[in-house]
Amino acid sequence: MQPIHIGLIGLGTVGTGVAQILQEKAELIAARLGARLVLKRVAVRSLERPRGVPLAGVQLTTEVASLLHDPDIAIIVELIGGYEPARTYVLDALRQGKHVVTANKALLARHGPEIFETARALRRDLGFEASVGGGIPIIRTIKEGFVANQFLGMACIINGTTNYILSRMSDQGLTFQEALKEAQALGYAEADPTYDVEGIDAAQKIALLSSLAFGAWVPQEAVYTEGITRITPLDIGYARELGYRIKLLALANLRQGRLDVRVHPALVPARSWLANVGGVYNAIVIHGDMVGRNMLIGRGAGALPTGSAVVGDIVDVARNILNNSTGRVPPQAYHTPEARSLPLQDIGELVCKYYLRFQVLDQPGVLAAIAGILGQHAISIESVIQKGRGSAKDDTVSVVMMTHEAQEGNLRHALAAIAAVPSVRGETVCIRVEETEEAEAQ
Amino acid sequence: MQPIHIGLIGLGTVGTGVAQILQEKAELIAARLGARLVLKRVAVRSLERPRGVPLAGVQLTTEVASLLHDPDIAIIVELIGGYEPARTYVLDALRQGKHVVTANKALLARHGPEIFETARALRRDLGFEASVGGGIPIIRTIKEGFVANQFLGMACIINGTTNYILSRMSDQGLTFQEALKEAQALGYAEADPTYDVEGIDAAQKIALLSSLAFGAWVPQEAVYTEGITRITPLDIGYARELGYRIKLLALANLRQGRLDVRVHPALVPARSWLANVGGVYNAIVIHGDMVGRNMLIGRGAGALPTGSAVVGDIVDVARNILNNSTGRVPPQAYHTPEARSLPLQDIGELVCKYYLRFQVLDQPGVLAAIAGILGQHAISIESVIQKGRGSAKDDTVSVVMMTHEAQEGNLRHALAAIAAVPSVRGETVCIRVEETEEAEAQ
Repeated sequence: MQPIHIGLIGLGTVGTGVAQILQEKAELIAARLGARLVLKRVAVRSLERPRGVPLAGVQLTTEVASLLHDPDIAIIVELIGGYEPARTYVLDALRQGKHVVTANKALLARHGPEIFETARALRRDLGFEASVGGGIPIIRTIKEGFVANQFLGMACIINGTTNYILSRMSDQGLTFQEALKEAQALGYAEADPTYDVEGIDAAQKIALLSSLAFGAWVPQEAVYTEGITRITPLDIGYARELGYRIKLLALANLRQGRLDVRVHPALVPARSWLANVGGVYNAIVIHGDMVGRNMLIGRGAGALPTGSAVVGDIVDVARNILNNSTGRVPPQAYHTPEARSLPLQDIGELVCKYYLRFQVLDQPGVLAAIAGILGQHAISIESVIQKGRGSAKDDTVSVVMMTHEAQEGNLRHALAAIAAVPSVRGETVCIRVEETEEAEAQ
Repeated sequence: MQPIHIGLIGLGTVGTGVAQILQEKAELIAARLGARLVLKRVAVRSLERPRGVPLAGVQLTTEVASLLHDPDIAIIVELIGGYEPARTYVLDALRQGKHVVTANKALLARHGPEIFETARALRRDLGFEASVGGGIPIIRTIKEGFVANQFLGMACIINGTTNYILSRMSDQGLTFQEALKEAQALGYAEADPTYDVEGIDAAQKIALLSSLAFGAWVPQEAVYTEGITRITPLDIGYARELGYRIKLLALANLRQGRLDVRVHPALVPARSWLANVGGVYNAIVIHGDMVGRNMLIGRGAGALPTGSAVVGDIVDVARNILNNSTGRVPPQAYHTPEARSLPLQDIGELVCKYYLRFQVLDQPGVLAAIAGILGQHAISIESVIQKGRGSAKDDTVSVVMMTHEAQEGNLRHALAAIAAVPSVRGETVCIRVEETEEAEAQ
């Protein structure tokens, strides 16, 4: 049976999972592929470090060049993450005639056009299923399964760290800091959690998914991004009272020829699909004009789920090698993606419902003042919750409002005016409500 | 741009959807595929019937042979359903060198080995994504995305008709007959609903999915099958009181080298993923040893969702035609599926929890008699609900029990003995409880 040789760069969590799967599942994969996948060389930073996986017959090296220039090796798997030297390795591998499989969403979100164009021009395969949603087959679904669809929108929970933190805050009443510490202790959050909790990781992923689904490059910088650091148990509690859960969503919608891409915490109806995706699970609701709404749920991280996606890509490339059909599916989903361009919608133009929490002195006329200013800015109120003291440590009370659909630009002007009302104290909490995407599913 | 010509057999609901998509999405598909899909000929039973879709430039014919022998046509799409003449058309098309795309699960569940082997031996492509779960990309996920996994199990809602009926019974308190009539009026159920409500359609689908996932042919006749016709609002109500919903599940599990495949109504925990899949949606929970549990949800029927899957398969085949790589993925997922054989588990060997409802005369000692017989058969009781009269029209009362895990063979012996107890009236209701698969997701 024909062997196909693989070179792996990086033996961290996912790299170890990939090495384990390639070895443990060799027979099973051979029966399905009709060829043997052989892990030939692994490039690591240090040869001394103990490895969590047996590597019998595998050459460990610190020289990445020895993989890139090994004529036996057909597929390079890049799992070191980050921008450089990952970018150089990937481009060099493609230019050496290798196919590349990577889980590096940061790299693709920043250098996607260069890397996709290089792979396309050289007709090399570039697999990156593992870069979004761990083991969830979303890239394949966009590029292949749903190829007959104009995509209309996506609503995703694609950061497991923040979903774990919000689930713990919601289920156990923990503060953000408490839930973060717990996530760090369990290895679900990094020592420096910025990328996850500020929404940057989710923004990289939704930028990449949008580029594939809509066929026009969406730079990560164009994604409006808000993290979860200011979410409090108080707001989670009010949201629950109103019939909602708070989730960090990554959203992309095509509306009247313009693309609206954003990452922020949002209230989702408690009975919706996304509200019930807890813990470290990821979920992606994807809306095609023919297929309607589909949702895919699975583990968004971890050595084996992510390794499963990497090896799925390796098999895909191997099938192309065996059939001389590399470049069969264009890396960025379209044959001529550069020909497409879509204007992006500014966050100020967004129209949705909003959850607002004002901290006010318990004085006559405050509610009237707030409602009056909202009215002047064309924002109408759907419901109000006002409770007695006790919810805050100072002498203020919470006034919680759900608005009807309003334009964000108007809302921001209104909130600026409300901040100048003397009885209003502190910063007003404002969280978007997302209920169009999943409400129909019940 | 190179054209790829398609011949379509059958212009019913799905055929009309496919014709519509091929025409409306021609530009979009060309941009992604790099070639034009051209619907050249459509075979119908009568040329007179009005069509729901414009067919400019398409040759309508009643002669299927004119498609099968047209040298321009590379792909035959079979959408007439049923066993014959569909089987003959599909086999003839393959032998004429055509690739085939079909949505016909009945055909594949019965004649799969013959059709798969013909396609494999001739290295022709055979696409059948639309045969299970409408637009949901489950076949592709099993054969490609999750190729690195030994599959451990599946739990599916794959019949939209019964899911709609059970949802209406659950939400509105309708009887089975009332909900069925409503489903028929809305076009969700056939005039003769047997295939759907008796679980046969779901059994065909789970047989097919099992054959792909486990690589050994599972004949539909080997699938233990129970429908939903005996489910009552009374049991739905008790299940709800116990924290469960009733769904028609199609299940396949690999346990100690044996395959357990079955279709029956089951109690699922109210907070589980599957419990919250309502209406006409389908959902498939699939468990791979590397990727863990994933769930895919989407519309399980309808012209456009199912058409989306058919056209996805057509594009897949077209990519193989353009790259001379037909036969790239073996139709039955394994290169040598005939080499694999898995013994099937008998339903009597099943171990799970059971929901039981006895109708008994309200007399002293009845509960003791039932509990005693269960105990003699090694069945222990987790909880009991017994209420006063009013729930039944006769002079009996309901005694509802949830058992701990028990073996079905033992349970059947116990139920036979209980039926002989004088105070027990009518047939005991027995519904399996399925909670292992989805409980962890919350």
